[in-house]
Amino acid sequence: MSAALEHVSGFDDEVSRDGIFSMKWDVASGELPMWVADMDFRTAPAIREALAKRVENGTFGYTDVPAEFMRAVAQWWGRQYGMDVDPAHVTFVSGVVPAISSLVRSLTNVAEKVVIQPPVYNIFTNSIVNNGRRVLTNPLKYEHGRYAIDFDDLEEKLADPLARLMIVCNPHNPTGNVWSREDLAHIGELCAKHDVTVVSDEIHCDVIRPGMTHTPFAAASETNRRISVTCSSPSKAFNTAGLHSAYFFADDAGLRARAVRGVNTDEVAEPNDFAVQTLIAAYTDGADWLRRLNAVVQRNKDYAAEQLAAHAAGLTPAPSDATYLLWIDCSRLLDEAGDTTAERFCDYLREHTGLALSYGGIYGVNGERFVRMNLGTRADLVVDGVGRLIAGARDYVGHR
Amino acid sequence: MSAALEHVSGFDDEVSRDGIFSMKWDVASGELPMWVADMDFRTAPAIREALAKRVENGTFGYTDVPAEFMRAVAQWWGRQYGMDVDPAHVTFVSGVVPAISSLVRSLTNVAEKVVIQPPVYNIFTNSIVNNGRRVLTNPLKYEHGRYAIDFDDLEEKLADPLARLMIVCNPHNPTGNVWSREDLAHIGELCAKHDVTVVSDEIHCDVIRPGMTHTPFAAASETNRRISVTCSSPSKAFNTAGLHSAYFFADDAGLRARAVRGVNTDEVAEPNDFAVQTLIAAYTDGADWLRRLNAVVQRNKDYAAEQLAAHAAGLTPAPSDATYLLWIDCSRLLDEAGDTTAERFCDYLREHTGLALSYGGIYGVNGERFVRMNLGTRADLVVDGVGRLIAGARDYVGHR
Ligand SMILES: Cc1ncc(COP(=O)(O)O)c(C=O)c1O
Ligand SMILES: Cc1ncc(COP(=O)(O)O)c(C=O)c1O
Repeated sequence: MSAALEHVSGFDDEVSRDGIFSMKWDVASGELPMWVADMDFRTAPAIREALAKRVENGTFGYTDVPAEFMRAVAQWWGRQYGMDVDPAHVTFVSGVVPAISSLVRSLTNVAEKVVIQPPVYNIFTNSIVNNGRRVLTNPLKYEHGRYAIDFDDLEEKLADPLARLMIVCNPHNPTGNVWSREDLAHIGELCAKHDVTVVSDEIHCDVIRPGMTHTPFAAASETNRRISVTCSSPSKAFNTAGLHSAYFFADDAGLRARAVRGVNTDEVAEPNDFAVQTLIAAYTDGADWLRRLNAVVQRNKDYAAEQLAAHAAGLTPAPSDATYLLWIDCSRLLDEAGDTTAERFCDYLREHTGLALSYGGIYGVNGERFVRMNLGTRADLVVDGVGRLIAGARDYVGHR
Repeated sequence: MSAALEHVSGFDDEVSRDGIFSMKWDVASGELPMWVADMDFRTAPAIREALAKRVENGTFGYTDVPAEFMRAVAQWWGRQYGMDVDPAHVTFVSGVVPAISSLVRSLTNVAEKVVIQPPVYNIFTNSIVNNGRRVLTNPLKYEHGRYAIDFDDLEEKLADPLARLMIVCNPHNPTGNVWSREDLAHIGELCAKHDVTVVSDEIHCDVIRPGMTHTPFAAASETNRRISVTCSSPSKAFNTAGLHSAYFFADDAGLRARAVRGVNTDEVAEPNDFAVQTLIAAYTDGADWLRRLNAVVQRNKDYAAEQLAAHAAGLTPAPSDATYLLWIDCSRLLDEAGDTTAERFCDYLREHTGLALSYGGIYGVNGERFVRMNLGTRADLVVDGVGRLIAGARDYVGHR
């Protein structure tokens, strides 16, 4: 184990994910899942205490969303990102995907088009297509090992009169890109020009390289603020995806009214008995824990990048400033092996090393030569996973 | 306190519902809420243990719906109701209302009509109207202090070619009616004849008069089974409405496919980290606790009925074999007071006695002269609430 992977207590301890019907860990014995985007860490102590206290009460009737919830959201965005969020503009939702699916329904009509920037979180496509809307892609450019937005293509897509909505992933999953204020303002300007509303999915915003900061889409310009709905949740950063606590906020009264009406009609606006407490605890008492998490995530990503650079010339991680996900360019390996996509390599890894990664092709255009590796786990599993990946890459080329 | 209200441990102990953002208890100090349909009892010990154990794990990622969930549902319906449910025909949903709203969307088109039987759970109307469908009412008959179905009117409504769906409330909220096998089969026969699909909401089925039994709509005939989707949850009986664990089942493959597609598109098919455990614990280890609950509920309803008969001639509870709700006919009181509806009486009760009941008019046609009283609470609050109701009724008439 590299010196960089010294034990960090509270993160590198062994934690069992057995017996909880974990989606991520629904794998065969001996397999190592580094796919589904949740982490193997216990959540922050303040959250665990709030949940234990709620269980202690023993009655599990209907819960309101109290003013404390909206205030906690506003405070978090103020303290962490210097952004002024009006608590009255915040709406509880049971998840970011439920919110996005609902917004697609409430802000567009059947057969209209929604712009996304692949390779991007695959479920955006489901939210669009499941509701009878159409996907319009503005593929990211990947040049000299850096992702960037193709603004000429974006403007062309936004000019389509059926384009009504754009979903921005800020920061970007799977690439780990943190968009600059200029990029975000530029997106907003083009969308405003073509009368396209923006849904900004900021679920990954709290997991970021130490020293860097996230720019909320709506904070990048007055235009951005006016034309957007921002969705987020403590779920990625605090490992509470299964507690179904998320929210959106929007400053424009008309946009907000339609969005709020939509999530109520769609029945995704009522909290379970743990959701309110989860968010309040995370956003009130979780900042220190989050700082430590971000150090651990960065350590893991640095370790994986170093190891791959040293021992797997065919695999090149994209530079990444956000998320606990590593987006790995397999082009050189695939060229050597004579493959056009990473799908077979992914299957091979699972079969021969037990390592389960996400095949990049599921994220759409230009994802086919990548794999996504979830590093939100403790040191020994990071070492194990990186080891399996390196050995798998070596054997894969040798074997063919 | 009447001898009938002897202390039952586990049910009549004082339980705090403060500090949990309870919707029901969001009232002024000194007020007694007997409205929103959840109970003030701690849930069954097996459920509390399962929740505590899940909190103990400390990680809160994505949860699968395991085969154990579907099996637990099938076993429950087999053991409690002698009904054969195929586990493969069961689908998890986050609530019965989310399921019904989704079924309205997936099984009908905009502007088509859905039949309901008022006075009935008010949210059915929201699920229909919020989705741009239209309500067709088949009002229940209330004759000689008994509720019955007006089958002539029902057939007329079902014959409307735009009638595509009927929502049956079995047992019936707010009346507490338990429908007979004959009634249910008759409904099914008429619906089949007119090609109308049935959604049977059986969320209240487990709370029933000791000695009586619930007949599932789908168990009443082969036709019923073929044309229906049954929705239920342990939430009413086990006081876990805020744990968002519910399900539906349907035997017809086409109906089921459309229903399953619908709840997935609508993002109400994924469990939170407590939902699966809640249902499994309730349905595996909860039968004894439920038997004791039903005795306590019956005790409360009997006590209230006796007291009203003795001390409030203007208030007549409808005979009720199910739910922890008392549906009280205020006609005589209103006649004395010169009122046409119970709305003012309801407001008066809250203002002058602090007792919060549900005004019957919200349940639609023929509910206007009733109030609904939630008796899912401990003995001292039942006595308190019934006392406030009697005093309020006396003063209301005197005062006018
Ligand atoms: C960009 C993005 N949005 C949304 C989600 C899921 O959000 P939720 O679990 O709140 O529905 C994910 C999960 O990986 C994600 O990466
Ligand atoms: C008949 C009926 N259906 C559904 C519900 C609510 O179901 P859920 O909380 O699972 O959405 C209620 C709550 O009172 C009800 O009475």
